[in-house]
Amino acid sequence: MDGTMMRTPLSVNHLIERAALLFPKVEIVAQMPDRTTRRYGYGELWERSKALAQGLLRAGLKPGDRVATLMWNHHAHIEAYYGVPMAGGVYHTLNLRLAPADITYIAKHAGDRFLIVDDVLLPLYEKLAAQAAFERVYVASLTESPVPAGLHRYEELIEDADPRWVPGEFDEDAAVGLCYTSGTTGRPKGVAYSHRALVLHSFAAAMADTLGLRQADVVLPIVPMFHVNAWGLPFTCALVGCSQVFTGPLLDPASLLDLLQKERVTIAAGVPTIALGMLRALEAEPGRWKLRDGLQMIVGGSAVPESLMRSMDRKGIRIIHAWGMTETSPLGTVAKLKEHLRRLDDEATYRIRLKQGLPVPFVEVRAAGESGTVPWDGSTQGELQVRGPWVAGSYFQSPDGEHWTPDGWFRTGDVVTIDPEGYVKITDRTKDLIKSGGEWISSVELENALMGHDAVAEAAVIAVPHAKWQERPLAVIVLKKGMNTSAGDLRSYLAGRFPKWWLPDGYEFRDSIPKTTTGKFLKSKLREEYASWQPGPKG
Amino acid sequence: MDGTMMRTPLSVNHLIERAALLFPKVEIVAQMPDRTTRRYGYGELWERSKALAQGLLRAGLKPGDRVATLMWNHHAHIEAYYGVPMAGGVYHTLNLRLAPADITYIAKHAGDRFLIVDDVLLPLYEKLAAQAAFERVYVASLTESPVPAGLHRYEELIEDADPRWVPGEFDEDAAVGLCYTSGTTGRPKGVAYSHRALVLHSFAAAMADTLGLRQADVVLPIVPMFHVNAWGLPFTCALVGCSQVFTGPLLDPASLLDLLQKERVTIAAGVPTIALGMLRALEAEPGRWKLRDGLQMIVGGSAVPESLMRSMDRKGIRIIHAWGMTETSPLGTVAKLKEHLRRLDDEATYRIRLKQGLPVPFVEVRAAGESGTVPWDGSTQGELQVRGPWVAGSYFQSPDGEHWTPDGWFRTGDVVTIDPEGYVKITDRTKDLIKSGGEWISSVELENALMGHDAVAEAAVIAVPHAKWQERPLAVIVLKKGMNTSAGDLRSYLAGRFPKWWLPDGYEFRDSIPKTTTGKFLKSKLREEYASWQPGPKG
Repeated sequence: MDGTMMRTPLSVNHLIERAALLFPKVEIVAQMPDRTTRRYGYGELWERSKALAQGLLRAGLKPGDRVATLMWNHHAHIEAYYGVPMAGGVYHTLNLRLAPADITYIAKHAGDRFLIVDDVLLPLYEKLAAQAAFERVYVASLTESPVPAGLHRYEELIEDADPRWVPGEFDEDAAVGLCYTSGTTGRPKGVAYSHRALVLHSFAAAMADTLGLRQADVVLPIVPMFHVNAWGLPFTCALVGCSQVFTGPLLDPASLLDLLQKERVTIAAGVPTIALGMLRALEAEPGRWKLRDGLQMIVGGSAVPESLMRSMDRKGIRIIHAWGMTETSPLGTVAKLKEHLRRLDDEATYRIRLKQGLPVPFVEVRAAGESGTVPWDGSTQGELQVRGPWVAGSYFQSPDGEHWTPDGWFRTGDVVTIDPEGYVKITDRTKDLIKSGGEWISSVELENALMGHDAVAEAAVIAVPHAKWQERPLAVIVLKKGMNTSAGDLRSYLAGRFPKWWLPDGYEFRDSIPKTTTGKFLKSKLREEYASWQPGPKG
Repeated sequence: MDGTMMRTPLSVNHLIERAALLFPKVEIVAQMPDRTTRRYGYGELWERSKALAQGLLRAGLKPGDRVATLMWNHHAHIEAYYGVPMAGGVYHTLNLRLAPADITYIAKHAGDRFLIVDDVLLPLYEKLAAQAAFERVYVASLTESPVPAGLHRYEELIEDADPRWVPGEFDEDAAVGLCYTSGTTGRPKGVAYSHRALVLHSFAAAMADTLGLRQADVVLPIVPMFHVNAWGLPFTCALVGCSQVFTGPLLDPASLLDLLQKERVTIAAGVPTIALGMLRALEAEPGRWKLRDGLQMIVGGSAVPESLMRSMDRKGIRIIHAWGMTETSPLGTVAKLKEHLRRLDDEATYRIRLKQGLPVPFVEVRAAGESGTVPWDGSTQGELQVRGPWVAGSYFQSPDGEHWTPDGWFRTGDVVTIDPEGYVKITDRTKDLIKSGGEWISSVELENALMGHDAVAEAAVIAVPHAKWQERPLAVIVLKKGMNTSAGDLRSYLAGRFPKWWLPDGYEFRDSIPKTTTGKFLKSKLREEYASWQPGPKG
């Protein structure tokens, strides 16, 4: 027996239409390269998005066609978020931080037909132009620089719109936007977000115990709009009708703090390194910035260091720790305190807030070990697997099946523990785990401990093959300038903190550790180098 | 092009499963007739709901079978909300306040197969038993009274459950629950709520600017669970993981206030008459109750009188005015203040809070007048029409099409104005409107004004036929004991408040006005009586 309710499709068009009707003057603020701001309300955002849709249709956009964006965070980018799907197209956010060859590969794999590019990013575009071969390129002006011959002005695209035009109704499973994973292993892969997924994600994100967005908020997504839709905030904010502030290309800590202060931002969102940069600036110039009381910062993308969270608390900025991936739209877990845990003391509270958090509604989580799902005991490790209506079920035009379990859960590649309260804590990446005698040793926990040693500047712990235990941990150490220590000393230092079988079989001292372009340890390189490592007489 | 996201169905099963996993000890509290409370956590609610599902399957429940409930608000009723759908059945909440003949009609129309009934309601059940002919009847014990022969004990039904049993996955459009309208015109009609509708409704209801539920809340739905699922709160609360408190059969103001105090309730929900009773009790015994600071009360079902809202504010209880219907699950509008309206003075703020409010996300509203949709000007009246994923698209097993427009919007029968900010205000019911010369006159506004006159106890304004203007208003007046006034006096009294053409053509004084069983004016009776009314020489 079916319900008797209307089968009205979920659509991101409703989000912007309602925001325009009810909150026409609530502002979208975009900072330009010259530090001026461009500002208008949801009413104008709606009109301009509809105008963009009409322009794209006039230019020949067909249903499902991809329109790439190579843009910073600003008004024209959010217009693309709403305007491209209104025309039946799919916006595709290109990551401007990748190498031009990678961007080209992604644009070609996605079959991008049109491109919208910031004028300040034209030098990057020039490096792609020959290979990527977009059919038409529209230039959004953040400065007064002239548009090169052969390219089109974005503002011309949205001229001559009919204000009475309304978008059609779309199937809720239709794609809205496309984003590629950064692809640390293998080629980048595309995730196509549907209307349904983005609407449901917005509902879950808005909830009080998730991100807790209210109509009165002023939200600044520092996270780029080419990273999982700026964590979906341009949609969640429209759902609640709150103000949105965009940085443009100015991402240095002082510019961010200036903008936070000037726009009286209540909630910011970004990765730990961004938060760290802001903290350093606040510490360097105490009293320079007067930020809004109760300012919160949603931090995800990688684990929040304890010292960062504590220092930000002292500055009056509360970090909300969250976890997600391109494949999870991205919100998977958020570390807010349950009511009955609010009575805990400060130290116990930090232990919880530093975890990745509780699964949000409709994201199911489990941790899978060598022999099935592991208990929620806060100590047994397993690979985090997730399932839900805003979790990817496949990659775009890719036969890749290895990222899904036979029963249809997405394999995140993160190794976690889940505690009895349901808080998820990431301990490693599956590829970096050390599997010793059927048990799992977290490279990340050993590294964090080692880097707490006074003499250690950097520490990477990797698996080396072992005849009896399959794998054993090896620590690769870079010492701080002028400091010294020994393998024996480090071993004693770790001994009190970990079970004996976790302790590395050896300590290799060297001048540097190879890194990825984003600054992470390149452990695959280390594993190659030490593939035939054997313990010395002291090991 | 479709998105690449999982097509995980939305299901109320997820709400209770997640609440049980993450908030197993957060309490469901039910007051028994002897004023003791029965209390357990979401963990046990989940176990007992699964046990109920297994019991129903053992009893032969087939997919889509209806299981009626004739119950007050308490733990076994919420177990039915979750347990019946887990078995693939549909719970059907019978309104115990209706006449037995009406309940019988509704149970037979719905094809109810099983019944769960409170022991304290067995006297009512006896009046239905012969006609309604349920296949099996399960008695939930709120007292220690014995179960009559031929009936079954509810607790036996949920014995012998397998804790490892898990419900299957259902299509999100499958029906979960069934509720009949009270049917002031024509026969009662059924609305079948789907998994999808109830989940989406819960997301919208939980939002900060809608009902604003948090995990830390303690929610007491005074509204009966047989009225539109207690406004959906048993689902919304599970979504956020907050505590739920149920009254059992004790609904007198003192019992309600005792329970609010004892359980430290943060949010209550009920109709204006319930709030009025509580106010009278608070005023009669100042200082007797110490309610939680910041207590809010969601009030809907009929318009909140201004004096009630102001008086409750003085008692520290903030009324949140909302509007909905059985056909809208029920949440349609909520009167919270937009950020930029928070600067208004007290009087202007009350003008907004006394409206029915802003449409919640995904409920689209429009007001239709004689010649199409009327503008959002706060003065032009039209019939409120709504559309959205938790709005009924048809009635259960009923060919009724008159309640939907040709383009698929639900006709609420409420006459409203919508102001430029989007706040909806109900001015009348369509059937009570006076249509004079193509313009609409609100009977409710004239009545409210007349009842503000010192000498007037009751006033009903109805349409009487008119040769030139089609209809004209006639006021039917009951004077307060020992007071007197005249038609001329009342006309002058109204003249300053309304346009001249709104003023009634006559004033009929009488001893009483016929009323419905729920105390509303029976205007259809008045219209019959005055069908051939003509103005006298003074008219």
